[in-house]
Amino acid sequence: MIGVDWGTSNFRAFRLASDGSIVGRRSSARGILQVEPGGFAEALENEIGEWLSEGEEHVLLCGMVGSRQGWVEAEYLACPAGADELAAAVVGVPFDRAEVRLVPGMKSRDADGVPEVMRGEETQVAGLLDTCSDDALLCLPGTHSKWVRLHGGKVAGFTTSMTGEVYRALRKHTILGRSMVAGDVDREAFLHGVERAATAGGLLHHLFGVRTLGLMDELRAEASAGYLSGLLIGHEVGSEMPKGAQVHLVGDEALCSLYRIAIEACGGSATIEDEDAAARGLTVVARRMGWI
Amino acid sequence: MIGVDWGTSNFRAFRLASDGSIVGRRSSARGILQVEPGGFAEALENEIGEWLSEGEEHVLLCGMVGSRQGWVEAEYLACPAGADELAAAVVGVPFDRAEVRLVPGMKSRDADGVPEVMRGEETQVAGLLDTCSDDALLCLPGTHSKWVRLHGGKVAGFTTSMTGEVYRALRKHTILGRSMVAGDVDREAFLHGVERAATAGGLLHHLFGVRTLGLMDELRAEASAGYLSGLLIGHEVGSEMPKGAQVHLVGDEALCSLYRIAIEACGGSATIEDEDAAARGLTVVARRMGWI
Repeated sequence: MIGVDWGTSNFRAFRLASDGSIVGRRSSARGILQVEPGGFAEALENEIGEWLSEGEEHVLLCGMVGSRQGWVEAEYLACPAGADELAAAVVGVPFDRAEVRLVPGMKSRDADGVPEVMRGEETQVAGLLDTCSDDALLCLPGTHSKWVRLHGGKVAGFTTSMTGEVYRALRKHTILGRSMVAGDVDREAFLHGVERAATAGGLLHHLFGVRTLGLMDELRAEASAGYLSGLLIGHEVGSEMPKGAQVHLVGDEALCSLYRIAIEACGGSATIEDEDAAARGLTVVARRMGWI
Repeated sequence: MIGVDWGTSNFRAFRLASDGSIVGRRSSARGILQVEPGGFAEALENEIGEWLSEGEEHVLLCGMVGSRQGWVEAEYLACPAGADELAAAVVGVPFDRAEVRLVPGMKSRDADGVPEVMRGEETQVAGLLDTCSDDALLCLPGTHSKWVRLHGGKVAGFTTSMTGEVYRALRKHTILGRSMVAGDVDREAFLHGVERAATAGGLLHHLFGVRTLGLMDELRAEASAGYLSGLLIGHEVGSEMPKGAQVHLVGDEALCSLYRIAIEACGGSATIEDEDAAARGLTVVARRMGWI
């Protein structure tokens, strides 16, 4: 079978053997924003047509391709839900050359009753339901970071922090970005930012320090972006992580390693899961569907 | 004499009688970013030349015109400092047709030792030193909101929150702005945002609710910008205001009235000072200089 994680900015396909092992990969920048309405079938054909010609008959999609801006809109599945519920809720997608189904996203409410949604992350999490302990906490950092609570082999609930998107907006569109230079994250400055996030005063106040520390020559231009990143991730971890938690990090390895620094500085501990969580989750759901 | 509050985006001049009353006003969008290096004398002449022709001989400037990007850079004055210290530290500015001086900004350190700076707000505050109680708390909301602590007739210290600039960056350059429509701030939605800011979870999490509430039809597009504003100002007030404080609000009246709603919702009380704080402060400093 073929599994596809089709997000806003990227297309990632995996050719999967019946034991779940990845026997082929394709990826491109053809995220859903790069596909014209009505052009999804052709886009899919272009990306994985070769595998279809070689006999693959089943394609399972997950991610923003199931949103209103995607191919077919799939209603969010309410938490608590696990792999069985995801498999039972897949949505059919019209396509000539293969059977195509789409894994729905999930919805939840936070402690204050405010809605939460995710698309794509639920599938990455599904790949970890069997291996995590019964009450595990997962963090999927990124544009919209997700903190996902598992209970009894299901997703019990989750919350989102806009950390990645806020970082980019602040860096590109406020005075803070003016003094920054491109380059690797300065890990020492990142940790200073994380530590600062734990002090008195809120994020809106801490942000101004990025400017004043630069102005007073107490923060180098090369270290400024790392410090800002530490401030934001420090605030996220400080708000979202229960004291002393053990966190499973899922996603881009470089970003996960920064989150691990922040989690440890805040008194928690973290393990970084392998990067193919989406492929594993697609396999888990496909198995419930009887596809493999 | 003539007092000028010359900021990043705006130029505001006041013609002041010896009793401090305002007998003339001029303002334009000729902030320092609209003035070429070397063009400040000409810009000032264009704005207030008429008053100079009528015999005015003294001009006192405050604001970002004293920054590195301005006309003449004035070093920040360290807190604690009051009107006497400001008057003693004014900086001379070369200008043919009148005697021109510039009020310096102030610097401080927050509880964590991180630097704080302001330019222009110190003059607005100077105008209130005589009328406020001995231990007063002032808030000057805006792009970079200032919370200023007075003690013994001086500025004891202050902190900055980047609330206004973050609001604009989020509204213009993140997914949150996509669903927003222009118009007046919806006061009910603003208050909901303030109340949400006081609940569990951090700002980065609360921000995502602007999107999900809209997605689930629980927040109207017309109310979305007000809710975001309430979230940000609620977080600022929650972090910066000591419990039950009495706050003097200084600045744009519409913005001050939103801050008053947030301050009262957070258990404090607020009075809105009149909008001519800069003119009053320039008078107070000029009096110490023997100009009036």
